[in-house]
Amino acid sequence: MNYPNGIKTKTNIKTSKMAPKKASKSHLGIDFEELINKSNQYYLENNIAIIYKKPTPIRITKVDYPSRNKAKITEAFYQIPSTTDYNGIYKSKYIDFEAKSCNGKSFPFTNLYSHQIKHLERITNHGGIAFLLIMFNDYKEVYLLDAKILVNLYNNSLNGGRKSIPYTFFKENAELINITFMPPINYLKAVDTIYYKEINNG
Amino acid sequence: MNYPNGIKTKTNIKTSKMAPKKASKSHLGIDFEELINKSNQYYLENNIAIIYKKPTPIRITKVDYPSRNKAKITEAFYQIPSTTDYNGIYKSKYIDFEAKSCNGKSFPFTNLYSHQIKHLERITNHGGIAFLLIMFNDYKEVYLLDAKILVNLYNNSLNGGRKSIPYTFFKENAELINITFMPPINYLKAVDTIYYKEINNG
Repeated sequence: MNYPNGIKTKTNIKTSKMAPKKASKSHLGIDFEELINKSNQYYLENNIAIIYKKPTPIRITKVDYPSRNKAKITEAFYQIPSTTDYNGIYKSKYIDFEAKSCNGKSFPFTNLYSHQIKHLERITNHGGIAFLLIMFNDYKEVYLLDAKILVNLYNNSLNGGRKSIPYTFFKENAELINITFMPPINYLKAVDTIYYKEINNG
Repeated sequence: MNYPNGIKTKTNIKTSKMAPKKASKSHLGIDFEELINKSNQYYLENNIAIIYKKPTPIRITKVDYPSRNKAKITEAFYQIPSTTDYNGIYKSKYIDFEAKSCNGKSFPFTNLYSHQIKHLERITNHGGIAFLLIMFNDYKEVYLLDAKILVNLYNNSLNGGRKSIPYTFFKENAELINITFMPPINYLKAVDTIYYKEINNG
């Protein structure tokens, strides 16, 4: 499935969300998004953090009004998101991340838009917490990779370096997140470990 | 124009955005949204802040694939947003606000959803900066009202108090934002005045 204008989409949670419900259910990626949304719901209900998924941007070209009470969109197209999927506030800090699932033994940079990586870099420069959440479907493992590391690897890839990040790199340089009952993806525990360790140690 | 399920919409920027382009251009509210978006673009390009409008949430019920390169949404409906329209980061702080334009001499609480007010309250409790940006069309004036004041007035309204906030209240208790060339709505100057005055004075 592809974006309008022939822009190729990628095997990721956003793509699967764009497909009609029947199709998307068969895709592993959607489960990852659901698990994150459930985790965010848990964080909200327990007053731990306020983090939401941004709606998928849609360009609306035709709207019908079958009755005065209803507006029905009859023609619209998916748009490329300007930023990342998730943002919010945790321990008074601005949090921003993109979530992707991938198959195989490495995460290709083609799964992200360059402006999304730029966005994560900007957030870091402005004092926010920014990262990539990645689920390796084949390993059933989720990792949190700090945006600074991601940006470095991406810049290297533009200068002739690897065009993907191997699973083994995540094992060594990213924070493994245990999948539990509730919250299913407790990524804020990993945020504590990575971004609040100075506070914990002090 | 109304939301699906018979939920009444209000004279606000969100409603006008939902109308087809021809109709929306005639509505003053859309200008306010454009002015805010231009301001955010200015803040981004000048590395002052990273603040985006969230896309309007849409529930997609039918998608066509006229060719392998295109996905065309053929049936979809507007959804009620879970949160506010804008959020981001400024001076390392999480920023969250709703923007509304209104006619007449007072701002009715029916222009906001109760869960949006709850959301702004939560953001404040978590250490974020939360407010309402309001444009009085008849006065061509824009005010920034801190969420704590908004929440108090709203709670009073539930207990028999006024169901709207008079323009005169904004004049006395909110921060007036000058409309300039660029950024058109320099609301971060008002943020500095209200939320960073301790820092400025110290």
